[in-house]
Amino acid sequence: MPSDFVRENHTLLCDYYELTMGNGYLLSGFGDRTAYFDVFFRTIPNNGGYAIFAGLEQVIEYIENLHFSEEDIEFLRSKGVFDERFLDYLRNFKFTGDIWAMPEGTPIFPGEPLMIVRAPAIQAQFIETYVLLTLNHQSLIATKASRIVQAAGGRPVSEFGSRRAQGADAAILGARAAYIGGCTSTACTIADSRFGVPATGTMAHSWVQMFDDEFTAFDVYCKLYPDNPTLLVDTYNVLSSGVPNAIKAFKKHGITKCAVRLDSGDITYLSRKTRKMLDDAGLHECKIIASNSLDEYVIRDVLAQGACIDAFGVGERLITSKSDPVFDGVYKLVAIEDEAGNVIPKIKVSENPAKITNPHFKKVYRLIENHTGKAIADLICIHDEVIDTAWPLTIFDPDYTWKRKTLTDFTAVELLKPIFKDGKCVYSKPSLEEICKYREEQLELHWDEVKRFENPHNYYVDLSQKLWDLKHDMLRSNR
Amino acid sequence: MPSDFVRENHTLLCDYYELTMGNGYLLSGFGDRTAYFDVFFRTIPNNGGYAIFAGLEQVIEYIENLHFSEEDIEFLRSKGVFDERFLDYLRNFKFTGDIWAMPEGTPIFPGEPLMIVRAPAIQAQFIETYVLLTLNHQSLIATKASRIVQAAGGRPVSEFGSRRAQGADAAILGARAAYIGGCTSTACTIADSRFGVPATGTMAHSWVQMFDDEFTAFDVYCKLYPDNPTLLVDTYNVLSSGVPNAIKAFKKHGITKCAVRLDSGDITYLSRKTRKMLDDAGLHECKIIASNSLDEYVIRDVLAQGACIDAFGVGERLITSKSDPVFDGVYKLVAIEDEAGNVIPKIKVSENPAKITNPHFKKVYRLIENHTGKAIADLICIHDEVIDTAWPLTIFDPDYTWKRKTLTDFTAVELLKPIFKDGKCVYSKPSLEEICKYREEQLELHWDEVKRFENPHNYYVDLSQKLWDLKHDMLRSNR
Repeated sequence: MPSDFVRENHTLLCDYYELTMGNGYLLSGFGDRTAYFDVFFRTIPNNGGYAIFAGLEQVIEYIENLHFSEEDIEFLRSKGVFDERFLDYLRNFKFTGDIWAMPEGTPIFPGEPLMIVRAPAIQAQFIETYVLLTLNHQSLIATKASRIVQAAGGRPVSEFGSRRAQGADAAILGARAAYIGGCTSTACTIADSRFGVPATGTMAHSWVQMFDDEFTAFDVYCKLYPDNPTLLVDTYNVLSSGVPNAIKAFKKHGITKCAVRLDSGDITYLSRKTRKMLDDAGLHECKIIASNSLDEYVIRDVLAQGACIDAFGVGERLITSKSDPVFDGVYKLVAIEDEAGNVIPKIKVSENPAKITNPHFKKVYRLIENHTGKAIADLICIHDEVIDTAWPLTIFDPDYTWKRKTLTDFTAVELLKPIFKDGKCVYSKPSLEEICKYREEQLELHWDEVKRFENPHNYYVDLSQKLWDLKHDMLRSNR
Repeated sequence: MPSDFVRENHTLLCDYYELTMGNGYLLSGFGDRTAYFDVFFRTIPNNGGYAIFAGLEQVIEYIENLHFSEEDIEFLRSKGVFDERFLDYLRNFKFTGDIWAMPEGTPIFPGEPLMIVRAPAIQAQFIETYVLLTLNHQSLIATKASRIVQAAGGRPVSEFGSRRAQGADAAILGARAAYIGGCTSTACTIADSRFGVPATGTMAHSWVQMFDDEFTAFDVYCKLYPDNPTLLVDTYNVLSSGVPNAIKAFKKHGITKCAVRLDSGDITYLSRKTRKMLDDAGLHECKIIASNSLDEYVIRDVLAQGACIDAFGVGERLITSKSDPVFDGVYKLVAIEDEAGNVIPKIKVSENPAKITNPHFKKVYRLIENHTGKAIADLICIHDEVIDTAWPLTIFDPDYTWKRKTLTDFTAVELLKPIFKDGKCVYSKPSLEEICKYREEQLELHWDEVKRFENPHNYYVDLSQKLWDLKHDMLRSNR
């Protein structure tokens, strides 16, 4: 990472109500009260069967860098609503709590805690916005990338979308998230220098226009970059000009390992014609790259129609997750501790059952069937429950409780790992390559039915009997 | 702005091909060749009738901060494709060219240059990605905000979306852009400390849950914040619990200037019932704020159904422009200068007429009819054309050239202002308040038909006869 790379102080990137509540907690004696918050999401983007968790590394950096500058405090004082005791408290503010989270790259499902924060109420409340925006953004893009990569069926997919990203972070961290989701490279140079996501790229139409004619532009490029050049062939006309000029340039320089890129027009038709022209010229090794407003739906369609494409560049529809640009992660209070340190579960009720929270300090197991090696359900338990795989375990649908299944030969893997303990990071951060490998392995644990593109099988996220009983007792006593 | 606010070095936030092309321009003798690029967009998000231009201030900051650190150069060297002469060139890289742009807050239309960059080819090419991502992002959000504010019909709209934004910049600069588009406040605290967008906010559900019961939570809050408190009334049940407890708390503290917020359920039904309960309790001044998955479509619908809502909080659907999350601004070469300094127009051809560029170094006039004070068309001219409003001017549709109109009593306002001259910023940056005022005045110049929510009138963007002739000559000679 470049040494003059300085992270901006993003401490005040919070919702203002986190400060008015913090001030209120302090003044009403709740400031040091330990609170438990869960991060979870409700719906998988694009009606998909799974999402990919990402962004944890940036949450860790944020927590470690939290501090209010004197200017921040002066700004808050100028608002005229905060007590001096609260402003004093902020002067020495740092995170002193515990955090558990799933590793980046984990396939995740609605309703289960992806992260649990246990901290004094002011702190736990304060980090809400930044934690959510970071996890929501990167999980959104990793999930979209995973779908696109799946549609490409083994062909490399490069992330090309910086210019249409929603801001600089969206470009940089979006490229990181896309790589976690399975893209093989990016056009975003800084994502390479900061994170090691391989950056690639060759020419825009302006290169071709800059020269007097298209052949000269290609000729100069091949001379400068004889090692696997990619020529953009649609500045004037793909079939009558671009491809013939590319062939002529490759031949002139004796280049056989090369590519052409199609960035407009009907890529099924053009790629098949282009393939034939390249093959007729003996350029069998020349690849065809396509890059015009692609996403998983277009890629599936053009491949089904027999498009001859070896690699894809995907821009705006990936970097914004255009078809569904919001990941709906939320941050909800699930418990507080009383003065004696007892954990008191809390619940948020709603007329809409999907919006009722799962109370209490919890943990999550992924249950793997030993004889198939496949995941069959995630089980949310109260934090001190232990699953003994030596005994049969009966799981049930939390809504339709007559849907039951008894597991015998299974493995239970805890998904939430300790990240912070008493404000110190205790997590050994994996490299981006390790995250990608983990994502690949973890996706392997899931049935194809869950990974299906449309109408996927709903993976089960169940509650333990104990948690289900607690939740229903709380709901009844609330009515 | 806080003094420990340090801007990250975003110089390497470029598409990698800008570097491979830059290296190529240098080595092939085109490095110092003056190039002209236009920024323009092709389609208005959500099939709207206009967009709002935003992001210029951040483009200026980016250009002024451009520099390659030694680490950046070392990183590029490690890629093994760049010539040492090019790496040397980057060591002293700074922008030395000219830029013209429209002021932020300008209503903009497809096809017209929003910004023109005139600079040595390497520089002009290099800034492409960052310029586009900045203008695309902020124009997207300002445009969406303008639609939502319009739907709210004078009721204040607050931007609430940080937690679902696509990264930190998307939250911070998105709040800025939403304000330019007409929002009155934000929940994003740092947008207030950096830009002066007023930050507001009161409580989340967690505040209500933190206390033993809802009334206590409201009671404590009113005691702490007696000056215009807003109570969130849907943690348990709006009508049977939230509103009665809010009324009880307001009454206990003698508060009449206050508000309740509805964040779930059917807000038409709930707001009407809530209004009646508040009025029956004599709380006529108590406002009702609604904030659950809103956008211009939902707001229009609930208001048409008689919802009693005084203000809106709009989150994810604004901060991501969910219904259409991409602003399709592009950056295209339109001319180069030959060695004698003559401007040689360039064109990008396409089978798709919408993708053919307008060649040459240009300027844009907005033509205002004097007797109505309304804008009737924008006219794109070659840079040295002058419109003499003393003479009648005939404008025509560039596609259907028989559609003609002759203007007599009109004013021609040049839209592109000088921003950089020889690498120096020559633009006196307006304050955010000035930008908002300008946006309001400029929108007033447009007919309601152009600002209509659906099926708006297509505002005319015409070419001067001279530019039209040039373009058609170039197209013919290309075939």
